[in-house]
Amino acid sequence: MERDASPIGVFDSGVGGLTVFREIARALPHHSLIYLGDSARVPYGTKSAETVTRYTLQAASHLLDRGIGMLVVACNTATAAALPALRERLPIPVIGVVEPGARAAVARTRGRVGVIATEGTVRSKAYTKAIRLLDPTIEVIESAAPLFVSLAEEGWANTHVAREVAEIYLEPLLDAGIDTLVLGCTHYPILRGTIEQVVGEGVSIVDSAETTAACVLAAVGTRSTGAAKHTFLVTDAEERFRRIAGDFLSREIEHLELVSL
Amino acid sequence: MERDASPIGVFDSGVGGLTVFREIARALPHHSLIYLGDSARVPYGTKSAETVTRYTLQAASHLLDRGIGMLVVACNTATAAALPALRERLPIPVIGVVEPGARAAVARTRGRVGVIATEGTVRSKAYTKAIRLLDPTIEVIESAAPLFVSLAEEGWANTHVAREVAEIYLEPLLDAGIDTLVLGCTHYPILRGTIEQVVGEGVSIVDSAETTAACVLAAVGTRSTGAAKHTFLVTDAEERFRRIAGDFLSREIEHLELVSL
Repeated sequence: MERDASPIGVFDSGVGGLTVFREIARALPHHSLIYLGDSARVPYGTKSAETVTRYTLQAASHLLDRGIGMLVVACNTATAAALPALRERLPIPVIGVVEPGARAAVARTRGRVGVIATEGTVRSKAYTKAIRLLDPTIEVIESAAPLFVSLAEEGWANTHVAREVAEIYLEPLLDAGIDTLVLGCTHYPILRGTIEQVVGEGVSIVDSAETTAACVLAAVGTRSTGAAKHTFLVTDAEERFRRIAGDFLSREIEHLELVSL
Repeated sequence: MERDASPIGVFDSGVGGLTVFREIARALPHHSLIYLGDSARVPYGTKSAETVTRYTLQAASHLLDRGIGMLVVACNTATAAALPALRERLPIPVIGVVEPGARAAVARTRGRVGVIATEGTVRSKAYTKAIRLLDPTIEVIESAAPLFVSLAEEGWANTHVAREVAEIYLEPLLDAGIDTLVLGCTHYPILRGTIEQVVGEGVSIVDSAETTAACVLAAVGTRSTGAAKHTFLVTDAEERFRRIAGDFLSREIEHLELVSL
């Protein structure tokens, strides 16, 4: 299959999707990956669905021109808004982050799932719809946790402030008796340690980065064996990206290019 | 002077400039104002100077087409990056937020000024340059306080979390012995109460929204006497803007239009 040797494109509005990128790179260490972060127009979480769809289609078109064989939409907001449009228009497989997270939640829950995400994702009710489609008896409580994004990006994930914010965001979900919590924004795995401390052992955490990587692994037929190349494309502010991405991935960022969509 | 009857355009990357808008509306209650928030591309604080300049010129061009007689750039990042380009190209007066803040700081300080702002504004050293131009003996210490933006936008300005974040951001400035603190991002006046509690009475606070409104008042020759119309233009997510702007201005937002730049 020629497709399997092509690089996998990983798209996000900014840096959050690097948590998904990291898990895919772990699962497929010999596969070349191209990450595109639309840093000129980040964040998507507060934008309208129409605007997010338009931006996402532009990004997908750029990645197609670079020869990707599969597209991973590593942004919950873009997945929630644009996945149907992408699947309709793109000649390659498209994997979003919502469905893998929903599947993992359904597999683990005893009946009550909490979802924390951006304002845009919560408004779309994408997780509730995806989970209910799999099992209509499950109760889903979605809640926006917008400050988590800046806490992750500014390097405050493991601070007392993050802990206090997490307590405030998660208290209503814990009071509602959730047994499973979906991290429905790709930034949130950066705060996973803090979130785990707050929810305790009784709540199972679904990290959409991990579950999406598992889906990508399943969708890629044959494995590559050669050397993998990781390319990073951003639409603005390379140096900020280099710093945050270095933090997220715990390594130096090579092959970083500024592109225009 | 025909120009004085024309509406004043107030431009910002999003909602932060509403603190400037509010002060101008207080100072000139009979003057029509048009606010443009580039909510589709917010925030500017993490973008490169070239990108910010391009976006700001597009916004200015749109406001010119609407017949404004003066442009207020109510965004520190856009002022720091784009003011010279705007002044060169626009046939009307252009007032930024940096110079009024720098003037007020120089008037008040006993020699050591702290400036808190976005990453982009701090990187530009716009405040240090503007203050040193007026008085080269003044010591200026600039520091980024990026979390203040999301705390203000998400309605967390007067919380214990905001207080703790303010203590962490301001401690190095207080240790350095500043006697004056410039709120160098238009979001920050929303957190003024919290910031005042942290710095105490010994530090004088310069609110660039107030000082910019004073400059606008001085630049507008004759006063209008008729009814003022306040128009709000955004490039995306009207409902989010309506909610946050209602909070910032403590009133209902009428005349809200979605525009494309």
